This record gives sequence, C-alpha cells and structure tokens, in this order.
Amino acid sequence: MRAVVALGGNALSPVGGTGSAEEMRASLRATSESLADLVERDVGLVISHGNGPQVGRILLQQEYAADHVPPMPMDVCGAESQGQIGYLLVQALDSAFRRRGLSTRALCLLTQVVVDGRDPAFRRPTKPVGPSYSRPQAQRIAHQTGHVFTIMPDKRWRRVVPSPKPLRFVEETPLLEVIEAGHVVVAAGGGGVPVVEHRNELRGVEAVVDKDLTAARLARLVHADLLLILTAVDKVATGYGTPAERAVDRLTVAEAKRLLAAGEFPEGSMGPKIEACVDFVAAGGSRAVIASLEHVTDAVFGGGGTEIVAHD
Amino acid sequence: MRAVVALGGNALSPVGGTGSAEEMRASLRATSESLADLVERDVGLVISHGNGPQVGRILLQQEYAADHVPPMPMDVCGAESQGQIGYLLVQALDSAFRRRGLSTRALCLLTQVVVDGRDPAFRRPTKPVGPSYSRPQAQRIAHQTGHVFTIMPDKRWRRVVPSPKPLRFVEETPLLEVIEAGHVVVAAGGGGVPVVEHRNELRGVEAVVDKDLTAARLARLVHADLLLILTAVDKVATGYGTPAERAVDRLTVAEAKRLLAAGEFPEGSMGPKIEACVDFVAAGGSRAVIASLEHVTDAVFGGGGTEIVAHD
Repeated sequence: MRAVVALGGNALSPVGGTGSAEEMRASLRATSESLADLVERDVGLVISHGNGPQVGRILLQQEYAADHVPPMPMDVCGAESQGQIGYLLVQALDSAFRRRGLSTRALCLLTQVVVDGRDPAFRRPTKPVGPSYSRPQAQRIAHQTGHVFTIMPDKRWRRVVPSPKPLRFVEETPLLEVIEAGHVVVAAGGGGVPVVEHRNELRGVEAVVDKDLTAARLARLVHADLLLILTAVDKVATGYGTPAERAVDRLTVAEAKRLLAAGEFPEGSMGPKIEACVDFVAAGGSRAVIASLEHVTDAVFGGGGTEIVAHD
Repeated sequence: MRAVVALGGNALSPVGGTGSAEEMRASLRATSESLADLVERDVGLVISHGNGPQVGRILLQQEYAADHVPPMPMDVCGAESQGQIGYLLVQALDSAFRRRGLSTRALCLLTQVVVDGRDPAFRRPTKPVGPSYSRPQAQRIAHQTGHVFTIMPDKRWRRVVPSPKPLRFVEETPLLEVIEAGHVVVAAGGGGVPVVEHRNELRGVEAVVDKDLTAARLARLVHADLLLILTAVDKVATGYGTPAERAVDRLTVAEAKRLLAAGEFPEGSMGPKIEACVDFVAAGGSRAVIASLEHVTDAVFGGGGTEIVAHD
C-alpha cells in the first residue's frame, strides 16, 4: 500500500510552544514513531507537511534583522522552511527506522509547485502569513511594502497572500523515481514553493499553496492507495462547536461537497482538508482519511478517522 | 562524462554585495549559463556549493530576532541555507536549460554528511562562521553561549567551529539513483549538514564540513570523471602575492602534497581546494581541475585552469 500523508502543524511542534529546535525534535520524534508503525506494516509513505508557524518565524526573523540583512521574499523563505523541517523530519524518521531495525530510509526532495498566474486567487489574497500586528503597525508596513493585511478574530492584523491551486510539481520525474525506489520521501513541504511559468522561466511568487490540496495533487501523481490527512482531531465533526456536534465516520464525495457548499467546514482549517479528500477521490483515488496522528494505524487499517469515499 | 562541480561563493552572489535575493538570482543566472554550456556538451553534472555568506546571514537573523524567535542551532541553519540556495539554483538552472531547449532538469536533494564524533577537528575549532564582533561583544557572547571565538586579520572577532572530515552521506542511495537517471543534481550544499551517528540515532553537530572536501567525497561516490572546483581565479598560483608568483597549469599529486606541506596554499582558501583534488585523484579519480566559472568549458575540454593528476 502506498499512502501520501499530510502532516499538520501539531505533528511538527507543540501548539502554543516557542518553536525551538528542541520542541520540534520532540514532536517529530513522536510523529516519526507513529509513521514508523506504518512502515513496519509495509505502507510506502510520501510525506508532505505544513509550515505555517515555521515560515512565520522565518519571516519574523527577516523583519527583526531587516536593517542589517536584506529580507528574502516569501518563496525563498518557503524554501528555507522546507530545508529546516525536511532536515529535522528526515533525521527523526531515519532514527525511528533504525531503532526498529527497518532498512527503509527517508530523504527530502526540495519541491516547487507550479500554479497558474491567472488563478483568480491572485486577485483575492486570503491566506494569513507571518506575525500579527496592531492596526497602526500594519498600516505602516502596508504603506512601505504594498502588502495586503486583514483583521483576525483576535482583532490583530496579519498579512494575507493569495492561495492559488496546485497544478503540478517541477520535480515530478525525480519524485516518482525516488518513490518507486522504495524510500520514504518528504516532499512539497508547506504546500511546495509556488512558481509560475513565464515564457521559458520559472519564477517564485508571493503566495502559499494549501498543503492539503498539494498533498491531494501529490497523491494523484504517485497513484496513492490512500490520502491520509493528519490533524489534531480524531474525526471530522458536523455542527462543530454547537450542541448538535456529531463526529462523522464516513462521507461520500457528494455529501462532502454538499456540506462544503453549506459552509459546514471553516475555510482556514477543516474546509481545505475535506476539499483535498474530495479532489483526490473524485479524480479516481480510492480512499482518503482525515484522522489524528495518535490513531494513524487505526485510520489506515481499522476504520479510525473520517473516511471520504466515492459512493456509499 | 560525469563531473562533480563545487561552486564557490562568487558563483552564488557578488563578493561584497548585500546578499539580497535579486543579487543571488543575477549571479545564479550567469552561473547557470556557464553550467548549461557543459550540459549542452553532454556533461552530466552533480553540483555542490558553498554557503558561508548565506548561512552567515541566516545566523545574523537568528541573533537579531533572538528575543522573539528561538535561534536555531547551526545544523538547522545549514539545512535552511541548502533550501534557500538549492531552490534559487535549481530555478536558475532549469530556466537556462529551457532557454536552450534542453530537456535536462535540475533538482535539489537535502543532504546530510556523516562525520566522526572523534574527529580531532572537534578538539580544535578552526572554521569562522557568522558575523564579526568587537572584542567585548565576542567576550559577552562567549560567556553566554560557550562558543569559541578567534581574532581575524581585520582585528574583529568571529566564532569558530570544528571542521571535521566528511565520511559519507546519509542520502547516498537516492543520490546515486537521481544521478543515474540523468538529472542535474544539487546536493551537499555548504559541505552537507554534518551529523554524527550515536547508537541508532543521527544527530546534527555544530560544525562545518569544508565544501571542497565534501565535493571530493561526492566525486568518489558517483565515480565522477572529473572533480571541478570553481573559484574566483583562473589558475592556482605558487608564490601567491610575492614577486615570484607563478600560475600553475598542472600539478601531480606528489607535487601538490609537497606544496601543501610547505604551507604554499592558505588554509582557509586555496589549501582545501588542492587537498580536495589530491583526495579525489589519489583515491583513483582520473582528473581534478581548479578553475574560474568564466573559463569552465576550457577547464573541462581545453586545458584551462589548474589540473591535478596522479602522475606526470
């Protein structure tokens, strides 16, 4: 069985932590133990991951040092975060494999994702990135940089960037080769570094591709048997946060689409995860599951999590 | 023909520049044009590169933001620099290949290099990293962190870290696979992220492996026909900076060893390049050349640069 796994933020470092390397190593050690359970049961893994808090910290470092070091644009910061997270993740995975006497090894392939320069997302930035600011701070930065800001639920302001759809990966051929060779491959971290094709050039853009949609694209590319989206909750819920809240074991593509259209799942969190599962299954993928890292083996083998399937 | 190319700092951004992304893109565009000349002539390329100024800037950013974002240790900063430089280099290479209608594509594989925890280098840190400080600044940081500092020719102080020998790469198998598949592979940037094996674990260490020695190790691994060390000068000189200065076309391993032992080549610059060439050729490698990026085609095909060979 081949699975594409999308790791959420909680798999990389504790929510509300400082984001130190020690914290990341501890979280990644636990994450890698769960994933090694799958490798031990002969599941071939392609692993994608988020990078929100990590690239946020890199962007903040750019800002604090801006008088001394020229800040790198977002695409370059995204590539730095792939290096940072990919390195720590590969090291944690290899260590978990070695402890169990498994011969499988992990590697990280730096990945660029091609997006369409005419994607409507470029006209409507929605994805918050980097630190939060007071209104006057945000206004000053907007004036200096032309960046777009939006107000958050906590009344602080954050920069928003476009979140275009992933079309394909620049590194598709080598990606398939290393996966076919049987390695555990870490790829397309943070949704991939978004690039557009302009004549004969590739150019990085100031945008963030949703990591779950990228994972779905990756799952289609590698003909995965399973798209596995790991997050902080065990199952998807309908009526979330209301007295009618109900955990869902199984959704057909039609039901999922209906619930998405009804605004049942929040745009910034569960929405794109459901959408990614729908994308994959509707395009012929056999099975997609949203589950927690703690119950990952159940999600793959024993019916844990919320499964999205083509038909009843 | 297969060549392992080690790119020096001047190939990545202008010496004395600010290190902005625009500057890096411009330098990498020129570098990629030179390298595409080789690809056009059917040379298979494995590309390694330095990261001194880039990781120095990342370390400086850690420092300026340290009250707000936990600084990452050196191994993680090295991985970030592989992401940063690897991304920009792959993009520049692919664009150069596309402009010429070449079907070859580049990719970057994040690379860890295994070093020996008992390498004597760990008892004698020699490699300057990161920003330079006044004496009181350096003393304060040394007191807080335990870092070792040394005085530089300009009377400023810089942190020094150990520079152990590269033994092997964690990612050797996939590295060979993607090279055999015919891709241009960017690997082991900044000399590779140095790790030690400790029981069943891999652990990053605060050290820097010399990028030219790493390139020589890479050249042995992939059975390269040529180790090509690109730097700012066209040829190696003996008597450098004296009235007796003389450019050298060719050195045997025995001559090179004699000159190294005589202290003819400075430790921080030409020394490790010669040493890397000697390493490769003495281990059975056919040919090693030190040359400038401008004359890279001559160096490969027409006798430019300084060649290190086994015998006369």
